[in-house]
Amino acid sequence: MPQPNGFTQHPAELLRVGPGFSLAEQPTDVAPGFSGKKLDGATTLAARAPVLSQLQEQLFAESRFGGSKSVLLILQAMDTAGKGGIVGHVVGSVDPQGVKLTTFKAPTDEEKAHDFLWRVRPGAPGPGMFGVFDRSHYEDVLIHRVHGWADEAELERRYAAINAFEAELADAGTAVVKVMLNISPAEQLERLTARLHDPTKYWKYSPTDLDERKFWPQYMDAYQRVFEKTSTEKAPWYVVPADKKWYARAAVQEILIHTLESLTLQWPAGHFDLNQERARLKDAVL
Amino acid sequence: MPQPNGFTQHPAELLRVGPGFSLAEQPTDVAPGFSGKKLDGATTLAARAPVLSQLQEQLFAESRFGGSKSVLLILQAMDTAGKGGIVGHVVGSVDPQGVKLTTFKAPTDEEKAHDFLWRVRPGAPGPGMFGVFDRSHYEDVLIHRVHGWADEAELERRYAAINAFEAELADAGTAVVKVMLNISPAEQLERLTARLHDPTKYWKYSPTDLDERKFWPQYMDAYQRVFEKTSTEKAPWYVVPADKKWYARAAVQEILIHTLESLTLQWPAGHFDLNQERARLKDAVL
Repeated sequence: MPQPNGFTQHPAELLRVGPGFSLAEQPTDVAPGFSGKKLDGATTLAARAPVLSQLQEQLFAESRFGGSKSVLLILQAMDTAGKGGIVGHVVGSVDPQGVKLTTFKAPTDEEKAHDFLWRVRPGAPGPGMFGVFDRSHYEDVLIHRVHGWADEAELERRYAAINAFEAELADAGTAVVKVMLNISPAEQLERLTARLHDPTKYWKYSPTDLDERKFWPQYMDAYQRVFEKTSTEKAPWYVVPADKKWYARAAVQEILIHTLESLTLQWPAGHFDLNQERARLKDAVL
Repeated sequence: MPQPNGFTQHPAELLRVGPGFSLAEQPTDVAPGFSGKKLDGATTLAARAPVLSQLQEQLFAESRFGGSKSVLLILQAMDTAGKGGIVGHVVGSVDPQGVKLTTFKAPTDEEKAHDFLWRVRPGAPGPGMFGVFDRSHYEDVLIHRVHGWADEAELERRYAAINAFEAELADAGTAVVKVMLNISPAEQLERLTARLHDPTKYWKYSPTDLDERKFWPQYMDAYQRVFEKTSTEKAPWYVVPADKKWYARAAVQEILIHTLESLTLQWPAGHFDLNQERARLKDAVL
């Protein structure tokens, strides 16, 4: 695939989870395929934003004339890894009208009373929409595995249900892109510490973050299992090194551009008689 | 009120609909209170985006610790006036996580079976959210008045219901900001014509736009009535000259900044023992 500005190899190729993938072997403080530094990353992000934005507009436009394609970006990560930054700086560069963002928090009592996909399905993007999940149904095989809230048989059932759900979405025209932002425990500690030294960031700090942090190795095991069970042809996972925020943003942007380009979108033809409408416009002076 | 960059008088002051307001007397091809030209407008928009963005983040942050404030921007205009541009370029500069956008199309059969505010209420922003209505309940006193789908008594009932609804929102902590983007018929004609000369814009063109255009004077009458009946202290209207897109965007941005500043937002204090958490962090090396 052709290389975008600043990249010597395409991140969609480099970061895609394939057979034999091992999360433990992935460095986090790197910028695979990118030849520049932080400032170049910011420049690339700004330069490529209009490309992503135009592709999203084409996706939206097609759906107005019967197109059924859509995109779903699923974001998973340990706390502070930068999901919010992806939403703000990558997704934030496209027209809000075409974005359907769903943030998944701890489930409510009503949600818990249903099977785990019940609350997820309404978040699936309609035709032309760019759906984003900030956390997702993967919590049900991550935190649930880490804390033993689901046993092995139940987890197996869920992996299978997830694959069936995502295949259904893909078959109906949704390009499913799953991104895990991969930070190191050291980088997380630095970011949590920064929050406690900046009064404009206190609100982002929760003492429970440190409790969950203790389970880091168990979370990595649970992610490894997720990648083995659910990185499919129809709904691939990308593991994005995220210690460098600028790299993670530029890489996710390129993965999205690549995904949208693979849909071979077209501007819809006018569903009207062009000459007739031009003539009507000439008579429309008020 | 203090003047932002580029403005010699604050648009929130200049463009607010007050007693005796006459829509017919408002020029559309002007830039009230702004001293510069198109390029300066773009510069101002970019320069002020981080200000709006930070205010939105404060609004969101406050709500995480019990704050009940929110903002609702209601956008109304004739076709092509630039509602989409406001959503994309002004609202689009804040974190999508904090935005709740509702686009109102022609009502469905189910929506029609209810009173006109039924479908509107769920769009009201929750605490901390920045709600945006692209069209709104005002269609029920605009297009309905123009086409005689509601008689005078019914329209009066609706104005009153709207004022009661918006006062309820305001009393519960929502700053309601209503913006009418004011373009001239000549400018609309130019924009419609441009759509028919650019294949990337065909999808935005609908032959019915020209049908509705014939009712321009009736629409202006209906807007004038709306301003007389519903521009209240709690939910003011702003009529923004919109023949110059760059001005409309900069002006709406400033009106939003002004509105958010008037909420006197604060960064929430940490709801934890700062020293204790800093000590815990020191022990949290993995």
